[in-house]
Amino acid sequence: MGLIVQKFGGSSVATPEKIKNVAARIIKEKQNGNQLVVVVSAMGDTTDHLIDMARQITDNPSDREIDMLLSTGEQVSISLLSMAIEAQSEPVISLTGAQVGIITNKVHRKARIVEVHTHRIQRELEAGKIVIVAGFQGLNENDDITTLGRGGSDTTAVALAASLKADVCEIFTDVEGVFSADPRIVPDARKLDEISYDEMLEMASLGAVVLQPRAVEYGKNHGVPIHVRSTFTDSPGTIVKEVGLLEKELVVSGVTCDKKVSKVAIMEVPDRPGVASQVFTALANDNVSVDMIIQSIKRDGVNDISFTVSEEDLKKAVTSMQKLSDDLGAKGVVYDMNVAKVSIVGAGLGGNPSVAAKMFKALADLGINIEMISTSEIKISCLIQERFADQAVQGIHDIFELGNGTSS
Amino acid sequence: MGLIVQKFGGSSVATPEKIKNVAARIIKEKQNGNQLVVVVSAMGDTTDHLIDMARQITDNPSDREIDMLLSTGEQVSISLLSMAIEAQSEPVISLTGAQVGIITNKVHRKARIVEVHTHRIQRELEAGKIVIVAGFQGLNENDDITTLGRGGSDTTAVALAASLKADVCEIFTDVEGVFSADPRIVPDARKLDEISYDEMLEMASLGAVVLQPRAVEYGKNHGVPIHVRSTFTDSPGTIVKEVGLLEKELVVSGVTCDKKVSKVAIMEVPDRPGVASQVFTALANDNVSVDMIIQSIKRDGVNDISFTVSEEDLKKAVTSMQKLSDDLGAKGVVYDMNVAKVSIVGAGLGGNPSVAAKMFKALADLGINIEMISTSEIKISCLIQERFADQAVQGIHDIFELGNGTSS
Repeated sequence: MGLIVQKFGGSSVATPEKIKNVAARIIKEKQNGNQLVVVVSAMGDTTDHLIDMARQITDNPSDREIDMLLSTGEQVSISLLSMAIEAQSEPVISLTGAQVGIITNKVHRKARIVEVHTHRIQRELEAGKIVIVAGFQGLNENDDITTLGRGGSDTTAVALAASLKADVCEIFTDVEGVFSADPRIVPDARKLDEISYDEMLEMASLGAVVLQPRAVEYGKNHGVPIHVRSTFTDSPGTIVKEVGLLEKELVVSGVTCDKKVSKVAIMEVPDRPGVASQVFTALANDNVSVDMIIQSIKRDGVNDISFTVSEEDLKKAVTSMQKLSDDLGAKGVVYDMNVAKVSIVGAGLGGNPSVAAKMFKALADLGINIEMISTSEIKISCLIQERFADQAVQGIHDIFELGNGTSS
Repeated sequence: MGLIVQKFGGSSVATPEKIKNVAARIIKEKQNGNQLVVVVSAMGDTTDHLIDMARQITDNPSDREIDMLLSTGEQVSISLLSMAIEAQSEPVISLTGAQVGIITNKVHRKARIVEVHTHRIQRELEAGKIVIVAGFQGLNENDDITTLGRGGSDTTAVALAASLKADVCEIFTDVEGVFSADPRIVPDARKLDEISYDEMLEMASLGAVVLQPRAVEYGKNHGVPIHVRSTFTDSPGTIVKEVGLLEKELVVSGVTCDKKVSKVAIMEVPDRPGVASQVFTALANDNVSVDMIIQSIKRDGVNDISFTVSEEDLKKAVTSMQKLSDDLGAKGVVYDMNVAKVSIVGAGLGGNPSVAAKMFKALADLGINIEMISTSEIKISCLIQERFADQAVQGIHDIFELGNGTSS
């Protein structure tokens, strides 16, 4: 007998009919002899609906009251899912984040879990019950309700799995697992049987969002295996776990692409100490997250400094840089929204220059110009023009022979 | 500076626009120099909508999970109302029943408040905040969410007023106060300036439901003045408080009518000791509440036993009595749904036979036959045919000169 933590997202519980299906799936797992803790998100578009009501009241609600409002969404899901399980005569109990004892810091709307008290869950499990837990929410030390931010239910599930020393944390989604590339772009993309936490983190940060990065970090720090699998089939998905280098057959696990990226450059910045620091301090002060950074080689006492930001931060970044350009006596700011970042992810890439060379060859073969490059231990990213992105992903996927062989 | 507890029902906060109006009203009272604790119900038909979702899952949800579900309704209201107050730059905080420290017994769906911890509210009031509290809900000693049953937000408000030693508990409704009769039946019915707790209890139990009886009881036991007033005007409503007999100008405060009542009679029951006990034990075992009871005078060794029940309990009562009739060798069961109970309510009625005589005269003048009579210290009720009910209420209202003189 094992202890399994399962997580079902909002689309899996969007309607009463879907809730009944999830209930059946949970009961089957229970009848296989396992103890079950199930984390649930708010039904379908409930969160959007609640936010919309708040907007009808005020443009600027406080984060505390937004958390008070949003946390009702999961509370509705857990009660309905529990009723569906009760209806099949299985012992079950629903618990809010507060009742579970998920203690967070005080930051509303993106709180971090600092502690999980498991005695209530333990007691209910020992009484033979399936425990249904509201994802995404916790309680801070002021006894106020907090929420964990986008994808927070994943973090709830992994944190519970860690605290309960569960055998596995299963995250149910509408895809079959983690793929070597987006199957909508690369038809012969292959489902990965397993992937390391670090690779998964890179995948997530590169736009292939099947798991909340903080949940992956939590899993990594506590050694919780995370099984990403489909709500709609019984076949196994992808297991995220610590994978030793020697165990890996493939160096490259997957190819990802982020089209929601923009390039900004501040031109002909005087080359004196502290200038780069001023640039990135200004961006940090305006809450702009920066990804790739390139400083050109000095020419005539001036540098160009380029970086990428998400499309939604572009306006803020440009405004911030135009002001700084004036202050520094630089030549001005240029930007480009029509770029995309294609990346390969894989354990040990950093130590293997031939892999980078192969990726660049794939792009060169397609006549695609590389505008920026950045590398880490487990990924290599190239910024290219957005219109070539899909082609680039397919070409790189092919050159590393990542496909399942069904594509031409 | 006073401390005021206000309660707004679901219709007062049914839309974002109405929530903003309520916020304005609360802020005005705060700016008058008062400390404010505001209890809110779920918006409009939220509770019905939630129950409907539960029904789509199962016909027989557990009371615990229903409470988990329904308590989200008030949580949405308090967060939205708090946002509306924040938007006007007034310090405010919303609190759930659990956060307030409303501790109830373990009975789900109709829990009773056993204790109120006020330290959190006190702290927030001392910090200068308006405190918005979720009505209708509490927490039991298992840390499970409970709800207080129909009209439970009234009880929350009065219980908080008692625990905080508030100056007054204001219950906002869609009527202007408590009237001498239903103004839809009696056009010249008069708004009462004040009424005693006991009279209010009788009014409530007789179908004039402006205040939850348990809230009135709580107010009576703790000496909390309850001001029933309109959400839509600033004019004073009716104050429910302890009223000494000598203070009262009128013996009769009001006339009420309950049409949702049925008469049941079990005919020719053998007259032997314990028979009446058997009848009412059988009804109690079937959870039927009985109101008026009459046992006819013995004739030929048999009695007729008649009683009234609510229309919704009629079927259960008749089934129960038919079985008992067979067991006892009685002649059978008859029943009548087309009856109504008209009542007068007033302090000291019990000691004043002339009042009863006057009421019976009003009915006699209209040619209305009285089928059953019951009396208490503060009310006299007559069961009559339902088709005469409105006429009877008007006639009794006239004979006691309760009107404001505008009617013919």
